[in-house]
Order: sequence, then C-alpha cells, then structure tokens
Amino acid sequence: PIRVAVTGAAGQIGYSLLFRIASGEMLGPDQPVIIQGLELPMALGALEGVAMELTDCGFPLLHGIETSSNPDEAFGDADVVMLVGSKPRGPGMLRSDLIRENGPIFIGQGKSIDANAAADAKIIVVGNPCNTNCLIAAAQAKRIPKANWTAMTRLDHNRAIGQLAQKAGVGAGDIDGVTIWGNHSPTMVPDIDRATIGGKPVADTLDAAWLADEFDGTVRTRGKAIINARGKSSAASAANAALDHIHDWFLGTGDSPYVSMAVPSKGDYGIPEGLIFSFPCRITAPWQYEIVTGLDLSDSVRDKMQGTIDELVGERESVSDLL
Amino acid sequence: PIRVAVTGAAGQIGYSLLFRIASGEMLGPDQPVIIQGLELPMALGALEGVAMELTDCGFPLLHGIETSSNPDEAFGDADVVMLVGSKPRGPGMLRSDLIRENGPIFIGQGKSIDANAAADAKIIVVGNPCNTNCLIAAAQAKRIPKANWTAMTRLDHNRAIGQLAQKAGVGAGDIDGVTIWGNHSPTMVPDIDRATIGGKPVADTLDAAWLADEFDGTVRTRGKAIINARGKSSAASAANAALDHIHDWFLGTGDSPYVSMAVPSKGDYGIPEGLIFSFPCRITAPWQYEIVTGLDLSDSVRDKMQGTIDELVGERESVSDLL
Repeated sequence: PIRVAVTGAAGQIGYSLLFRIASGEMLGPDQPVIIQGLELPMALGALEGVAMELTDCGFPLLHGIETSSNPDEAFGDADVVMLVGSKPRGPGMLRSDLIRENGPIFIGQGKSIDANAAADAKIIVVGNPCNTNCLIAAAQAKRIPKANWTAMTRLDHNRAIGQLAQKAGVGAGDIDGVTIWGNHSPTMVPDIDRATIGGKPVADTLDAAWLADEFDGTVRTRGKAIINARGKSSAASAANAALDHIHDWFLGTGDSPYVSMAVPSKGDYGIPEGLIFSFPCRITAPWQYEIVTGLDLSDSVRDKMQGTIDELVGERESVSDLL
Repeated sequence: PIRVAVTGAAGQIGYSLLFRIASGEMLGPDQPVIIQGLELPMALGALEGVAMELTDCGFPLLHGIETSSNPDEAFGDADVVMLVGSKPRGPGMLRSDLIRENGPIFIGQGKSIDANAAADAKIIVVGNPCNTNCLIAAAQAKRIPKANWTAMTRLDHNRAIGQLAQKAGVGAGDIDGVTIWGNHSPTMVPDIDRATIGGKPVADTLDAAWLADEFDGTVRTRGKAIINARGKSSAASAANAALDHIHDWFLGTGDSPYVSMAVPSKGDYGIPEGLIFSFPCRITAPWQYEIVTGLDLSDSVRDKMQGTIDELVGERESVSDLL
C-alpha cells in the first residue's frame, strides 16, 4: 500500500478529500492505500469519527486508517504527504501576518516530514499561503529532495479550464494548454496563449473582449466568489484539485501535455531560483515531473509575471529568518 | 448523458455526493452525466456556490449542472432521482412525528417525479425515515413502475462489512454475503449467517461471543456513534452508500452475489406486500434487480425480522391517509 499522510484531516477540505483517496480516485483503482490523518488535539475526536465513516464505506483499497495529533506519527513512512491544514486568515489579518503565523507550523512539519516520511516522499502544500508555506517546510529538508516539495495551483488551473468550457458551452475535456504561473494568490497569471478548445485556439471560439477583460479576473477572484455564494470557502473543489495534482504526478496527465504545479524554480523563464513557483509541468514517469521550458511568452504575460515574482520574492524576504 | 436529480443538494450529504457523481464514480468512467440539484429557496444561493465548485473541478464527464428550487424543473426528464433531503429530527421529536412531518414533502416529490421524470426513472430515497418516505412517494406514482422506488439500507450493509473486516483485520473486499433485512432503523436485522471472510464462514475467523453480543448492536447504533465522535451525522459515508446503491443497480455488484436494497416487497419471506423492505438483491442486467429468494433463515433472524416488519407495518398504518 501507499501511505498517504493528510494534515487538517477532519477539516472541510480533508472531509472532501479522504473518501476520494480511499475509493481509489487519487492513486488508481488497483492501488491499496493507508491513510494517516493528522489533526490538532482538539479535533482528534472528530477525526476519529471521520475514520469510523471511512470504515463504514467498506472501501476495498483502504488497507488502514490511522489518526494522530503527533506529526512524527502521522508522517511516519508516508509516501505522499498532503499538507492541507493551516492557520486560516482571521478578520483584518494581512497576508503578511498570515505568512508569519503559519511559519512555525510549516517549520515543524517540514522537520518532522524530513525525519519521518519515506526518503522519496512526495509533498503537496494546500494550506495557504501555500507557495511560501512550502518554501518554509522544504527549507527544513536535509534528506528528502527539494524537488519533491510542491504547492497547489491546480485549483486555479482547473478554474481556468472551467471558465473556458462554460463560456464556450463545451465539456472541460475539450480544453487544453492552460497554464497558471506564479503564486496561488490574486497575483497569479492565468495564461491561455496556448490554450485550445477542441484543438483550436481559444480566440477562434471565444469573444476577444471577454478573454481580455473578464476571464483573468474571474479566475483570480474565484475563491472570493465561492465564499460569497456558499458562505464557506472552497472545500470540495480544493480537495479535487489536490487529488488531481497527486493523481497526475503519479499516473500522468492523460491527453494533456502538461498541468500547472508550483515547484521549486531552477531559474527557467528568469524566475529566481528556489522560489516555489507555478509552472507548466509534464510528467515523464511515475512521480517524475519536468518543468516545460522554452515556451514563448507574450509581453502581456511577461508583464503580469513580474508582479507575482515580486510578491513571492517579498514573501521569501519576510520569512528569511525561518529558512 | 444520464440526468441525475438530487434533492437536498447543498446539504452535508449532497456536498459529499455531487462531486463523486460528477467524477464518474457512480455511473462509471465513460458515462456523461447532467446533475439537476433541488434545494429549498433559502439554500439556493449555497447550491449555486456548489455548482460553481463543480465547474471549478473541470470534470470531463459533467455535461451540465442545473439548480432549482422547483421540483418540477429539478426532476424534469431525470433518469436517476436521489431523494437526499428530508426534514431532520428535531429535539424531542418522536419517530412518528418525523414520519408525519415528512409525509407532505414526499407526497409532493412523488407526484412531481411521476409527472416529470423519465418514464423509467430509478429512485433512491436517502432522507429518513427512508423506507416510509419511499412508500409515500411511490404511492403517488401512476406512470413510473413501483419497482423503481427504492430506499437506502446500503449504509447499514457497508457498516456491517466494515465491522467484520475491521475485527478480522482484513480488507473490506474480503467480506461477502452480508444482508440487512427490513427497516433503516434500529429494528433492522443485520444477517451474517451466510457471510464469509476470505470465502470462509465468519465464525471460522471471528469470536462467537463478539458476533453474538456486539456485532449486531454496533451496526444498529452506528449512526449515533458517528454523531458522538464527529459532532455531526454521517454525511460522506451516507453519500458513499447512495453512490454504491445506484452504481450497483446500474453496473452490477461485481464479485458479490447480492447487496442490500430496500425495495417493494412482493410477499417473499412472508413480508407484507408493498412494504419498502430491505432484502438481498441481485442485479440481473443494468437497472434490473431481483430479490434473492429461497434463503434458509435462522430462527434468530426470523424472530428479529418480526420486529422490523411490525415497525414498518405500524409506520404504514400511521400514514395510511397519505397513501
């Protein structure tokens, strides 16, 4: 079995995620899994209830479900680590406050993962601010390769696909070639210069004014729109994106040439080395990704990219004492 | 595409259910679906938020998501109808009160389904008290065959499997031959006389005292145990069971000879005709079930069955004016 550690396991995203991991949607229909859930001591009872419900599903692939409030236990021998839990943004809290508040959590988790998880563990950070949380955790790693530490921009990627499909009146499977660059924040750059609808450039199908004026903003601010409609932040769609991220990293991207993953920059496209930055990534073998290089970026995308680079560099500076 | 109508679509169970329907877990990986969600007017905004999140998942099989607070719209041309919503039990409310409170809802929904859904629509009632809610709704049907109206005891079935697997320390896939008889209530009869663990009778592996004294009660009262642990009633496991019920009805039970479904009694095993009663059912073709007859029941099971028959007959009498 593959051991999957999940933090914030009894939270809203965790509750949407665990059952789909256990049913085989993340790692495939023939791959047994053991789930190792981590929760704060105060939520451990709730997590035990979730574990009971997982048992009550009779999932044939679920070979075990362990619950703990001790990171060293929860990350023990984990092959996949999904860092879903984080301190949420309180009223009036700035992004910079949020980063500082989460810093110590991700230092502790980074250390514990490096000490306890499998030597080739694959990590995805979902808890926000996910790029910089990932940077902080990865900085603690002495044993697990830096390339294995990733953050989630797949939700933004999927939102971009959803918007194009909905506007064009086609299925999401007809959309390809979308990229999210940069930070999972409003500075992100949704890039559809190479996107296609049924194999043709998006501009052949969709109104240029909508693409220029509305698409971008809709994707960037989608999280807030969901909160306004639902009264709660995105949970099932965030869980789905985390599932997609790990699924594709392990099993490939199917018909798509690449997907968006926030991974450590090696300097491609002029992105400062080491930043956890969302790039188009192709999967070359199970658990092997490769940043797609050499794409010809438009001036407009280049301009916007500077904003997300600046933000991520600023975030890195603000936590430099933690790295 | 198959049109799936879901009531209570923005509720806890609905939120766990819709994303798995859309991903293809219910109707298979090649079957496009259109989801038609019904909610009370006050929850329609939240449902629209859920629909946004479904779009944000980019599910290739999801060919549409419609939301409405009008049953006639939500049930329109539906091939599968999942009645998840119901009035919950308030503090101090008796089961008999609950039945009377839900009666008018299920009369209205039964009429609307019969008038608007596909002529061969398949219905599952999840909202409790599900057997008698189903009886009430089915009584309104003039066009859709009575046999198509079913209620969910699959959660109890899966809970029984989960308990046996956990106790034996095996995977749930190693358990077979479980039956739930009767009402989805504490009078239900979990019957493991033909159950096997790895192909051998359960008594070969499990302690006779545990089987006699604890197993039965654990399954019957599991819902309450989940509430105690989680602080909320079963949602993801209930959604999973509804998914299993429809999945198997359409695609078969795989290696299992039969599963538990609450369906209209035709008099087998001495069960009064017309009661919505949980039987072992085998799937003979897509959307065709058959009650497994001729099983030799133990005296103990026979005795317990009388209790659940009496309860269901009493429930039917209490709503006789609604039938």
